[in-house]
Amino acid sequence: MRHDTDHEDIFRQESTFHYLFGVREPGYLGCIDVESGKATIFAPRLPQEYELWMGKILDADDIQEHYGVEEVVYVDEIASWFEGRAPSAVYVQRGKNSDSGTEVQPASFEGLDQYQVNEEALHTVVYETRARKNDEEIRLLRYVNRISSDAHIAMMRGARPGLMEYQLESTFAYGCHYNGGARLLSYTPIAGSGPNSAVLHYGHAGAPNDRKLEDGDIVLCDMGCELYCYASDITNSFPANGQFSADQKLIFETVAAMQTAVLSAMKPKVAWADMHELAYRVMCERLEAAGLLVGDVDEMMKVNVGGVLMPHGLGHFMGIDTHDVGGYPKESQRDGRDGFKALRLQRLLEPGFVLTVEPGVYFMDYALKKAKEDPELRRFFNWQRLQDFEGFGGIRLEDNVLVTEDGIENFTVAPRTVDEVEAVMRGEIADSVALIAWR
Amino acid sequence: MRHDTDHEDIFRQESTFHYLFGVREPGYLGCIDVESGKATIFAPRLPQEYELWMGKILDADDIQEHYGVEEVVYVDEIASWFEGRAPSAVYVQRGKNSDSGTEVQPASFEGLDQYQVNEEALHTVVYETRARKNDEEIRLLRYVNRISSDAHIAMMRGARPGLMEYQLESTFAYGCHYNGGARLLSYTPIAGSGPNSAVLHYGHAGAPNDRKLEDGDIVLCDMGCELYCYASDITNSFPANGQFSADQKLIFETVAAMQTAVLSAMKPKVAWADMHELAYRVMCERLEAAGLLVGDVDEMMKVNVGGVLMPHGLGHFMGIDTHDVGGYPKESQRDGRDGFKALRLQRLLEPGFVLTVEPGVYFMDYALKKAKEDPELRRFFNWQRLQDFEGFGGIRLEDNVLVTEDGIENFTVAPRTVDEVEAVMRGEIADSVALIAWR
Ligand SMILES: [Mn+2]
Ligand SMILES: [Mn+2]
Repeated sequence: MRHDTDHEDIFRQESTFHYLFGVREPGYLGCIDVESGKATIFAPRLPQEYELWMGKILDADDIQEHYGVEEVVYVDEIASWFEGRAPSAVYVQRGKNSDSGTEVQPASFEGLDQYQVNEEALHTVVYETRARKNDEEIRLLRYVNRISSDAHIAMMRGARPGLMEYQLESTFAYGCHYNGGARLLSYTPIAGSGPNSAVLHYGHAGAPNDRKLEDGDIVLCDMGCELYCYASDITNSFPANGQFSADQKLIFETVAAMQTAVLSAMKPKVAWADMHELAYRVMCERLEAAGLLVGDVDEMMKVNVGGVLMPHGLGHFMGIDTHDVGGYPKESQRDGRDGFKALRLQRLLEPGFVLTVEPGVYFMDYALKKAKEDPELRRFFNWQRLQDFEGFGGIRLEDNVLVTEDGIENFTVAPRTVDEVEAVMRGEIADSVALIAWR
Repeated sequence: MRHDTDHEDIFRQESTFHYLFGVREPGYLGCIDVESGKATIFAPRLPQEYELWMGKILDADDIQEHYGVEEVVYVDEIASWFEGRAPSAVYVQRGKNSDSGTEVQPASFEGLDQYQVNEEALHTVVYETRARKNDEEIRLLRYVNRISSDAHIAMMRGARPGLMEYQLESTFAYGCHYNGGARLLSYTPIAGSGPNSAVLHYGHAGAPNDRKLEDGDIVLCDMGCELYCYASDITNSFPANGQFSADQKLIFETVAAMQTAVLSAMKPKVAWADMHELAYRVMCERLEAAGLLVGDVDEMMKVNVGGVLMPHGLGHFMGIDTHDVGGYPKESQRDGRDGFKALRLQRLLEPGFVLTVEPGVYFMDYALKKAKEDPELRRFFNWQRLQDFEGFGGIRLEDNVLVTEDGIENFTVAPRTVDEVEAVMRGEIADSVALIAWR
């Protein structure tokens, strides 16, 4: 961590604060009067000389106009503002995030302890509200997904052997920002080629997408951006040279079938864990038919063969956070099996939920070695045939979808068949609109 | 701040740790034996399952090879490693950074308090060493500057009225990463058009380069990137439409003359504050000749007219931090006058110093209003003529230079005359090599 420098990353608002108040600058607090529904924001009072460095200083009226709240008060007036209102209770948010395991830091100010402070009620309410997207959020999520779909397609069109992985990353980021106005990426881009495509969080500082694409590689690009703090999270997989080999086609179509099965089955009241299981079942059926797996699919499901080839969760909530809040309501529990234990969501689907659907198949040394040593698991694998997949890496396809009253709306427009991928890479499809037309 | 999410920004190593050990991943510690000069790094012991998410886990031998240190020990062995050596003293760094005002956080480990710990000596040694760049650092700084010069030129070639400021930012970032492999920007890009060009730290989250370029605007772009943690920090200013108006030409040539005067005068033993003063003097002479200022230049210098039109420092150290360390050795003091008080460097130049040279002239409402109310200052301004510059903004030119034995080497290759800027914007000059040839 950089502790002794004046370097500052671009400020990104805390997600729930953004959700409730939309303020894009640091140093603010906010309050909603539960009875009237009126929103008040407390703005920092900035010294006049700030104007030289940061631009014209908005007064309280400008800020009120800009953020569309009922009232703006300066932070140094917060105690007296509360005194004037004498609220019977003040609700602040305290609670745990089930993805990070970290605690929400409750708002506070000098004098808060004079009031009856409730730290219990707000957390569930806020997380459950954030989990169900309203119409404005849906429009924004749809838009940022379209921007990202276009940037993914531009990135794939430019891909070829000899390029560095980071050139795919930079092409994507450029497309999102230049064409879509999305300045920030929602997470560290993953541009894994060859064996790197099976490293689930490749692209981090220790492995910064710095391998050269080779002829014959599979490339897996998991990249998203955010606009007004709303995220996209899309994965495409494709052959570096633009043409699938027979084995690449087999795995791509397996993953595409897993995704299609889930997308077709999703609707309100369906359990997300069942969708994860469905993806595993389709995987086992396909790979059994292709001779990579051997034996009875029901037996495979019992010992969780799917967890070997796809050790991550099928998908997660998405919104202001890439891994959005609300995946584990109080009553729900973690499932300990490989893959299932990585699920960031353990609940029944409801209209307004926005999730990723991101099945994959990966040939990971570590996972396969463990399976080979496990008497329950090893009999289902054709170890001879699996030798063909050494260094193959893996394939993932990730779409972002909204649960509707009777099914889903898929926000993502990305190549999802072998023909579509090859047409994009031949340069025949320039963007999401062209892809829809091509279909 | 985002406190309840699993979102993580890309890890960027702490600068001094990077300087001493070059490790690009988190969780490491390091130690240098003062007598032998041998470097040891202490690596975190990672669970095997990490391989699924982050890639192949290097063992101690791999890490030693990768980072070129004499020894690698796991962090959980650090106490016993020290016990085995029984050092007579352990030096850790504690001290203040004169740019940020924040304290260096000294390294520590369980059991450190058994040794005689010296927290005094290291800080000055490390900062003074970092201030003088060695040959490897110079090669890297020269290279990252060239990448950035090329990306600036590409950005200027693409500029035109109707574009959004953030499209300049994204073009620059893309050029640095795609062509130069520089993944991180060294600071938040400033792409200020029209009046925004006079907002010194424009581009922050509250003003994210989101204005449209208008015909007749000056555009000021202050953008740099970093490679292996070494920074560039370059500013270009240009007319949005590619052709200077008479007033734009006047201000551009004033700033260029300020920069040329300083670059010509820089050499070892010259005081940086004198260079700042020289820039102000050239500014006053030029603007007096042009009729914007009136009266005797020596008198202007006495009351610091320059501080009104350029309220920032002339330049700063550069290296692993954009505002690099060592600007204020213990004996040096801040000068309280406008402009001078913003200097991040108060010392005599030495060979091996790398600095920015970034004079500017800005028409800032706040600063001009203050000057108009000041009886000492107001008589030097031609207030009638200054009305022509309402909404003009400002111009800055920023180069990054190395102090050599008898002068400087300028790392930056950017358009520094009206002709050069216009040729770049007509598309006649594609990159830094072409610019050198054009000259
Ligand atoms: Mn995802
Ligand atoms: Mn600078």
